[in-house]
Amino acid sequence: MISTFVIEKRCLVWIEQIEDKSLKSGGIGESSLETYFLLALVKEKRARGAILKEVKEPELASNHVLAKVRATSICGTDVHIYEWNNWAASLAKPPKIMGHEFAAEVVDVGDNVAHLKKGDLISGETHIYCGYCHQCRLANFHLCQNVKLRGVDMDGCFAEYVLVSENTAWKNDPSISPFVASAQEPLGNAVHCVFAGDVTGNSVVIFGCGPIGLCAIELCKSAGASEVFAVDVSEYRLDLALKMGADQVIDGRTTDVVSTISSSLPDGADVVLEMSGAPIALDQALKVARRAGRVTLLGLPSDRVTIDVSNDLILKGLNVQGIFGRKIFSTWDLASRLLKGRQVDLNKIITHKLKMEEFERAFDLMAEGRCGKIVLTF
Amino acid sequence: MISTFVIEKRCLVWIEQIEDKSLKSGGIGESSLETYFLLALVKEKRARGAILKEVKEPELASNHVLAKVRATSICGTDVHIYEWNNWAASLAKPPKIMGHEFAAEVVDVGDNVAHLKKGDLISGETHIYCGYCHQCRLANFHLCQNVKLRGVDMDGCFAEYVLVSENTAWKNDPSISPFVASAQEPLGNAVHCVFAGDVTGNSVVIFGCGPIGLCAIELCKSAGASEVFAVDVSEYRLDLALKMGADQVIDGRTTDVVSTISSSLPDGADVVLEMSGAPIALDQALKVARRAGRVTLLGLPSDRVTIDVSNDLILKGLNVQGIFGRKIFSTWDLASRLLKGRQVDLNKIITHKLKMEEFERAFDLMAEGRCGKIVLTF
Amino acid sequence: MISTFVIEKRCLVWIEQIEDKSLKSGGIGESSLETYFLLALVKEKRARGAILKEVKEPELASNHVLAKVRATSICGTDVHIYEWNNWAASLAKPPKIMGHEFAAEVVDVGDNVAHLKKGDLISGETHIYCGYCHQCRLANFHLCQNVKLRGVDMDGCFAEYVLVSENTAWKNDPSISPFVASAQEPLGNAVHCVFAGDVTGNSVVIFGCGPIGLCAIELCKSAGASEVFAVDVSEYRLDLALKMGADQVIDGRTTDVVSTISSSLPDGADVVLEMSGAPIALDQALKVARRAGRVTLLGLPSDRVTIDVSNDLILKGLNVQGIFGRKIFSTWDLASRLLKGRQVDLNKIITHKLKMEEFERAFDLMAEGRCGKIVLTF
Amino acid sequence: MISTFVIEKRCLVWIEQIEDKSLKSGGIGESSLETYFLLALVKEKRARGAILKEVKEPELASNHVLAKVRATSICGTDVHIYEWNNWAASLAKPPKIMGHEFAAEVVDVGDNVAHLKKGDLISGETHIYCGYCHQCRLANFHLCQNVKLRGVDMDGCFAEYVLVSENTAWKNDPSISPFVASAQEPLGNAVHCVFAGDVTGNSVVIFGCGPIGLCAIELCKSAGASEVFAVDVSEYRLDLALKMGADQVIDGRTTDVVSTISSSLPDGADVVLEMSGAPIALDQALKVARRAGRVTLLGLPSDRVTIDVSNDLILKGLNVQGIFGRKIFSTWDLASRLLKGRQVDLNKIITHKLKMEEFERAFDLMAEGRCGKIVLTF
Repeated sequence: MISTFVIEKRCLVWIEQIEDKSLKSGGIGESSLETYFLLALVKEKRARGAILKEVKEPELASNHVLAKVRATSICGTDVHIYEWNNWAASLAKPPKIMGHEFAAEVVDVGDNVAHLKKGDLISGETHIYCGYCHQCRLANFHLCQNVKLRGVDMDGCFAEYVLVSENTAWKNDPSISPFVASAQEPLGNAVHCVFAGDVTGNSVVIFGCGPIGLCAIELCKSAGASEVFAVDVSEYRLDLALKMGADQVIDGRTTDVVSTISSSLPDGADVVLEMSGAPIALDQALKVARRAGRVTLLGLPSDRVTIDVSNDLILKGLNVQGIFGRKIFSTWDLASRLLKGRQVDLNKIITHKLKMEEFERAFDLMAEGRCGKIVLTF
Repeated sequence: MISTFVIEKRCLVWIEQIEDKSLKSGGIGESSLETYFLLALVKEKRARGAILKEVKEPELASNHVLAKVRATSICGTDVHIYEWNNWAASLAKPPKIMGHEFAAEVVDVGDNVAHLKKGDLISGETHIYCGYCHQCRLANFHLCQNVKLRGVDMDGCFAEYVLVSENTAWKNDPSISPFVASAQEPLGNAVHCVFAGDVTGNSVVIFGCGPIGLCAIELCKSAGASEVFAVDVSEYRLDLALKMGADQVIDGRTTDVVSTISSSLPDGADVVLEMSGAPIALDQALKVARRAGRVTLLGLPSDRVTIDVSNDLILKGLNVQGIFGRKIFSTWDLASRLLKGRQVDLNKIITHKLKMEEFERAFDLMAEGRCGKIVLTF
Repeated sequence: MISTFVIEKRCLVWIEQIEDKSLKSGGIGESSLETYFLLALVKEKRARGAILKEVKEPELASNHVLAKVRATSICGTDVHIYEWNNWAASLAKPPKIMGHEFAAEVVDVGDNVAHLKKGDLISGETHIYCGYCHQCRLANFHLCQNVKLRGVDMDGCFAEYVLVSENTAWKNDPSISPFVASAQEPLGNAVHCVFAGDVTGNSVVIFGCGPIGLCAIELCKSAGASEVFAVDVSEYRLDLALKMGADQVIDGRTTDVVSTISSSLPDGADVVLEMSGAPIALDQALKVARRAGRVTLLGLPSDRVTIDVSNDLILKGLNVQGIFGRKIFSTWDLASRLLKGRQVDLNKIITHKLKMEEFERAFDLMAEGRCGKIVLTF
Repeated sequence: MISTFVIEKRCLVWIEQIEDKSLKSGGIGESSLETYFLLALVKEKRARGAILKEVKEPELASNHVLAKVRATSICGTDVHIYEWNNWAASLAKPPKIMGHEFAAEVVDVGDNVAHLKKGDLISGETHIYCGYCHQCRLANFHLCQNVKLRGVDMDGCFAEYVLVSENTAWKNDPSISPFVASAQEPLGNAVHCVFAGDVTGNSVVIFGCGPIGLCAIELCKSAGASEVFAVDVSEYRLDLALKMGADQVIDGRTTDVVSTISSSLPDGADVVLEMSGAPIALDQALKVARRAGRVTLLGLPSDRVTIDVSNDLILKGLNVQGIFGRKIFSTWDLASRLLKGRQVDLNKIITHKLKMEEFERAFDLMAEGRCGKIVLTF
């Protein structure tokens, strides 16, 4: 483990430099021959784990800002990369600084940046879109055909400083705490799913009570859903689901999910959100939906799944939506308003606030599922 | 078996009452006073086949009309019932007169019928909806939770006369021939699918070139689709697909469907219509769709199917629609306009016009797939 | 004025008869030579006013139910007819029993009625649709081209008993009080308007704080609107608006509406609901809407209005929706769920519960605007 | 008038420089003390007219391309600016090179440009959006709150060369001629309007047969509209409307528009496109629309207009859409496909191809309305 003292000192120097306004558009190195280092959690090898180490400071590009990370949170994707499962192995490109969920303060601004300034509090979209492929031309930036992922294809935000292009930065309302702002990106997934159709006065079933599912529960209740059923296989998460406002929680290990929901909703559920990625949940999701209902899929099964397309989808006239990421930036806009209006309180899902040095414990907690959102700080 | 004499007598009286023997065009009694028959093709036993026999005339109910069948066509459902496969066995309730696609002329009108009169040319919706279940209350009559099927749960239209409730009757434009009007109900399936989203300027892939798929090809071309690809495994049907205007036809037995389409449409297809019910087609349908594309499912797989939900649906942000029947009656309204405006010409898909006595040949042709639509007359 | 005592007695007899099941399809008089009378508020002459009088009991038709009115409420339309302004004079057809908002209990059931039974608590749709015109074929029953209005084209519900066709009846949940159920029809107008687009996380401006506007305020808040501004010119109503949960109320007489809202919402309002019918409100509605915003119009100006179509509508890319009535019955379904889920509490807008004999006071209160909803009982 | 010879020579030199790759990011002058001049039509004074003169070459910015104009066409906005009416006076900021519709070939590429290269054929969006205002965040770039207009707020394309930022450039398919590509931007307005809702099988009424209205006619026919009615007050334009495929043309000066259309469409028109800006046309547009119909407004009335909101909009349950510009870039994408698929042929609406020196004649023709689209070349 790197000595904390050394790091702190170097950073101190570096921050002083900023305050000294020695950093203009040209970046840190401009007025000095010295090279500065930042602390960052790096996925270095194609194997389990990651290392907290010093890295060279990023070079400020003309359409980017450099921002000091105030809080950063762990996503399921990070866990996959940390654990190095097959999916991660096919996707990740070590060595890279991990992480994509963050709240940070702008400390330096590139030449071509027009809408951000020092002191602005920002988060950033994970999906770095090209702006010119067919999907981007259709304004489906979140489905960019050349998308790059922060923390996967480029250095991420598990670092003291992060470089963010202006067109992927989202300016946070100063009233929102860094902890909450950091968890805003997964909130965006929930917002994207929940509001992909009507909710008010509708019965909703949510499969999967991870952070996104938990956000979805509160969003549905805030939007006036008539009933919200939450399904999971972890008591810990079902308890959180109740705290988020679920009207009924169902433990899929001990309960017949379909018959339980059907007895409460004989006409079927208006809206079903599949946020677990479990094949059986997808099957159940289709079965509990009412005719002409909406089934919104976010959870990614790790393998092919088998469904009764005829009876559970076609004959019921269902609408099945695959949801990826967040609409850039209309989902961010809506999520911000809901945060500001206190219609969703992310503090309820932030179960752990840890120091970056405790990253091993954090990833263990995530792997065990005994947590909501974990936020890391330096 | 009912006594012929009795039937003759009743019919005689009945026809006199209606029109004073002024019924032309092949009505009862035209040839002779001694040989009146209400002929109908009846599914009598829970086994393969059907029988053409005399039946009692239907009793006119207050909110129904009695209509003389001018033409009636065979649907895939009829073939299932005729062949008596497992699906039919679980659905059909013999003895019943078969058939649900027809064009007929109103000859008698119930007391409470206000909007139909003698001489009106009608077809009828197959899905007899209750009007009061949750789906009917949402105006999703085609998804009625208590739906009954003409020709399955009640007597159908493979008969000289058919009884039609006013609220399931559709008045045809007199300019449309009975042959065409009879095939209007499957056209409705195609219209429902094709126009469940944008088409104009869009690239479309259609899996399955049965009558519904063939209608869909012409509808897409008439609506200004940029390209229409048609996929089937029968040369006969692919030839018909070309005649309907497909820009490219693909034989799924000899061609790699996904790579062929992808090479023409590198961004993927805007719209995919799955009308075959083949599991492999569903898999390919998801794969050829572009990100944020539309996949509309009508074909009913006979068993569960396995798909790559993560890569082919969720990560692509697809919209998958299950389609059943026709919207009652907005789909009929649109189909009628398109027929009247000659934007679709059903004569192209009517490959056989047979007499009802030839029903065995008709069902054999259907089973072999060597036909488009077969229309029957008495 | 008719003696209350006599009426009560006659009704008592009549109800006993019903319980005795002496009423079949033929109506009250069938088993007796006596004629029974009901008390009803009748618009008798083409002049201001109405008269409370005895009328003959309605004859039960085969697809109707007879229902005892538990509560009935006054709509603005009733006031127009009572006051007999030009609009009413062009519309109403005296003599007719007035009224169309009610909650009633089914006491007799026509022969063809299948889904209602004695004891059911019902309300009824005001717009009696034909079911067969072009709009009805499109399932736009509320826009029926042959629509008839209860209480205008046919006898209404300001009576002890009301005749309701099965296809215009709405079965109420027994947990909802007759007072609330009676006011459900105007709630339906509000539901139709509010949920004609997105609301959650949106800023909303509502012009007009009559009963419909007041319902809309609470609906928007329950659905998670970010801010709700209410505009009116009556202090009484603005007070009610605050009670319904408006975040800010604006008195149009003393405040510059547009600049006040614009200073709070510099990007403009996401949603604007015009429920006043005042020409100036329509003008302001367009001005306060954000670009690409939604402006939903329900209030009916009594004359032509002048607007800046170029700057306030086209250049802003607005979506302007005319809303009439309620979707039959999807709006009723949604309204019922919201009532049952206590997301809207109509007790807050019911400011007066009066006896039918007090109808003059009721109409005076309505004309003065010093009330929310007034409910009448016998 | 400037000598053509001199200009040609200078340009020749200049182009040679480009070919010599002596142009980097700094522009022409960088490697030379000489200043080069281009020919351009400049709005120089706040009065009627414009002047064709030599101007300094534009300086290439890092995210821009310099493109040689192959064809440029005149929009109604240009005519307003040329004529200098009140609207133009409030909007335009002379001196500026006029024009915004063009087809051009990229001859130089800024440092940060990634998706365009020399030789690419481009057109450009007129609305230069900021990318960061609320509307841009909602992906409504065409409604940008800080929008700048090419040819109004910045130099336009009535010049031999035009500077285009990469994010407003649209790459044309090489199969499309410069004349057609130049008129693509107004086509975009038509595409935006026509496909703002359903068209196939729908009856459409189009008010205003200028270039946009003419495009709309052909688009509607290509998309399978059941009937297209075109209304104008110029015989010249009504003739063009017939050539574009209108089923019926109506001269508003001599015909009762509303009753003529109503007699053909007793239920009303499904879709009405108002593209004239005439107040009376707006009034008629609302009246001929069917209940629940769509009325799409593009034409900008020069003053406030008076409409019957109650009867013509609210009671009919209309949907009125204000349309501005084109969706960036989904409208461009759709327009390009339709052009490429020959579903719309802009050659039919290009009535004049003139040299830039003939600009006075061109503006006179435009003012008189005796033309379709006029394309200018150097």
